[in-house]
Amino acid sequence: MAVYTHLGAEEMSALIARFDVGTLVSAKGIAEGVSNSNWLLETTGADGPEGSGGGARFILTMYEFRIELADLPYFLSLLDHLAAKGCPVPRTIHDREGKLFVSNYGPNGDKALALIEYLPGVSVSTPTAGQARAVGAELARLHLAAADFPASRANGMGVAEWQRLAAACGAEGLARINPELAGIVASELPRLAANWPADLPSGVIHADLFPDNVLMLGDTVTGLIDFYFACNDIIAYDLAVTHVAWCFDRHDAFQPDVSAALIEGYESVRALSAKERAALPLLGQGAAMRFAMSRAWDWLNTPADALVTPKDPMGPARRLGFYKSNPGIFA
Amino acid sequence: MAVYTHLGAEEMSALIARFDVGTLVSAKGIAEGVSNSNWLLETTGADGPEGSGGGARFILTMYEFRIELADLPYFLSLLDHLAAKGCPVPRTIHDREGKLFVSNYGPNGDKALALIEYLPGVSVSTPTAGQARAVGAELARLHLAAADFPASRANGMGVAEWQRLAAACGAEGLARINPELAGIVASELPRLAANWPADLPSGVIHADLFPDNVLMLGDTVTGLIDFYFACNDIIAYDLAVTHVAWCFDRHDAFQPDVSAALIEGYESVRALSAKERAALPLLGQGAAMRFAMSRAWDWLNTPADALVTPKDPMGPARRLGFYKSNPGIFA
Repeated sequence: MAVYTHLGAEEMSALIARFDVGTLVSAKGIAEGVSNSNWLLETTGADGPEGSGGGARFILTMYEFRIELADLPYFLSLLDHLAAKGCPVPRTIHDREGKLFVSNYGPNGDKALALIEYLPGVSVSTPTAGQARAVGAELARLHLAAADFPASRANGMGVAEWQRLAAACGAEGLARINPELAGIVASELPRLAANWPADLPSGVIHADLFPDNVLMLGDTVTGLIDFYFACNDIIAYDLAVTHVAWCFDRHDAFQPDVSAALIEGYESVRALSAKERAALPLLGQGAAMRFAMSRAWDWLNTPADALVTPKDPMGPARRLGFYKSNPGIFA
Repeated sequence: MAVYTHLGAEEMSALIARFDVGTLVSAKGIAEGVSNSNWLLETTGADGPEGSGGGARFILTMYEFRIELADLPYFLSLLDHLAAKGCPVPRTIHDREGKLFVSNYGPNGDKALALIEYLPGVSVSTPTAGQARAVGAELARLHLAAADFPASRANGMGVAEWQRLAAACGAEGLARINPELAGIVASELPRLAANWPADLPSGVIHADLFPDNVLMLGDTVTGLIDFYFACNDIIAYDLAVTHVAWCFDRHDAFQPDVSAALIEGYESVRALSAKERAALPLLGQGAAMRFAMSRAWDWLNTPADALVTPKDPMGPARRLGFYKSNPGIFA
């Protein structure tokens, strides 16, 4: 939630000149992304035959940490693929040479930069059933639209990573966060790993479709954003991740109407097979474990005086328990 | 450089409804301000007789720390006063009841919020003479336009505060930053305090007109922003602050052409009296001391693992020495 690198007007203007988007009118560092710097840019717009588009807006991202440069082509060309099929995702703006991103940038040549479309919309905090229905439908459209996406990327946040994070936190670390958490992980993680399905349809998934990563205007989805966890994995797991993220209130209370609407919306575009539907309780537990483990690690590794408040791993941990006790919600 | 408070779409929409600016289209937390949270908002625009303005943009600021609420009317009504006189400053958007800001906001009722105009432009890193000339002229216009501003506010970063900050850092703390710094403060601060002018024209000053606080398109100033140090003090001191901020490169090398252009630009609008001009070397040393002291304090009080890198107090400290040795640059 910060801008790690200062880019002055001169440097920003020179950067923008690499793209056919006109000249710089405004640049504001925006507080999005935890492992990269982002700016909301306004330019005069591309010089087309009709002259200046006027007020064209873009998001410029500088990749600073964590994300492997080798994965950037996957993320950025996926945006192009989905946008071309009408999904509400930001298009990647290619540079004048047709490249997806600027590489070897900065004084040490170790940074990369990409320019993507700006999309309107705001992220909701308390989703309604109508909003969840719309998100479910867009998620299903994304799954269908990505079916012929040619590239592939393994899920870096899969079962093996939950186990690695749990070991890195240690039972003592988990207990320090919450005495219950160590117990939940000790009993549930081996069970999930042993029973994780291997025979469900797989494809490209967003894998992190929290409300923060969905832009909406009313009940309309105007943007699906932040594809940096996108990968190839079990398709129905993406619906389970979205379910964990959308169908509980801030006190972790299950919202039956939101849940029903999310799944209805999804199935209005892509029907779940009987096998997929039967797997949802387990996939939901896995999705909850995934966020419990990444949050637990962040919790133990965020400096006490950092500006960012780490998210409580007990939220997803409680949701895991809910899915285990209430498999009928997906029936 | 962070957004301290999360405002979801619902809360943001409810907030925006207090103003006649249409409905929310987009909200991005922006990485500006160290003691408040800021969002760049887009709305459908106020409902006027011609219908939606479309794409109206604003900056929403939530005041979280430091700034005394009692000072907000001064800052915000100053923007209105200057904008009405044609200065390129953002207008304050009053709420539907005509109020300058929303008070008693948030769960504890201890926050305040203000909506101001968004202005285009970008901040330069390496000012040219042409840019400095334009900024000098706008600064002088601000001083003239504010002459009949009815409110008054003492300078909280005046000589007494430099002394307080120096004492709070302590000679040992200053020496820890740089062995030279303690010596500079010990010898120069008492001299500046003893000789600080008391008989120069005073009025409303910006007091912090660094390039970061000026938006430009080419050589045109499109915005003077961040008035949270604005106060009533020696008018020529404001030119001295601006000189410290604009007329040296990143290696603290004096830029004679930029300096000449800044002062020429200023005097093209408001001539300096002989007394003011003669005081500039001393005022420049004071301005340099002011930033050396605030940066020294921040340096010693920023956690080592904070995301924000504190600014080096030695930059202004070296500029202080330059002004002392080269009073002729203002002749």
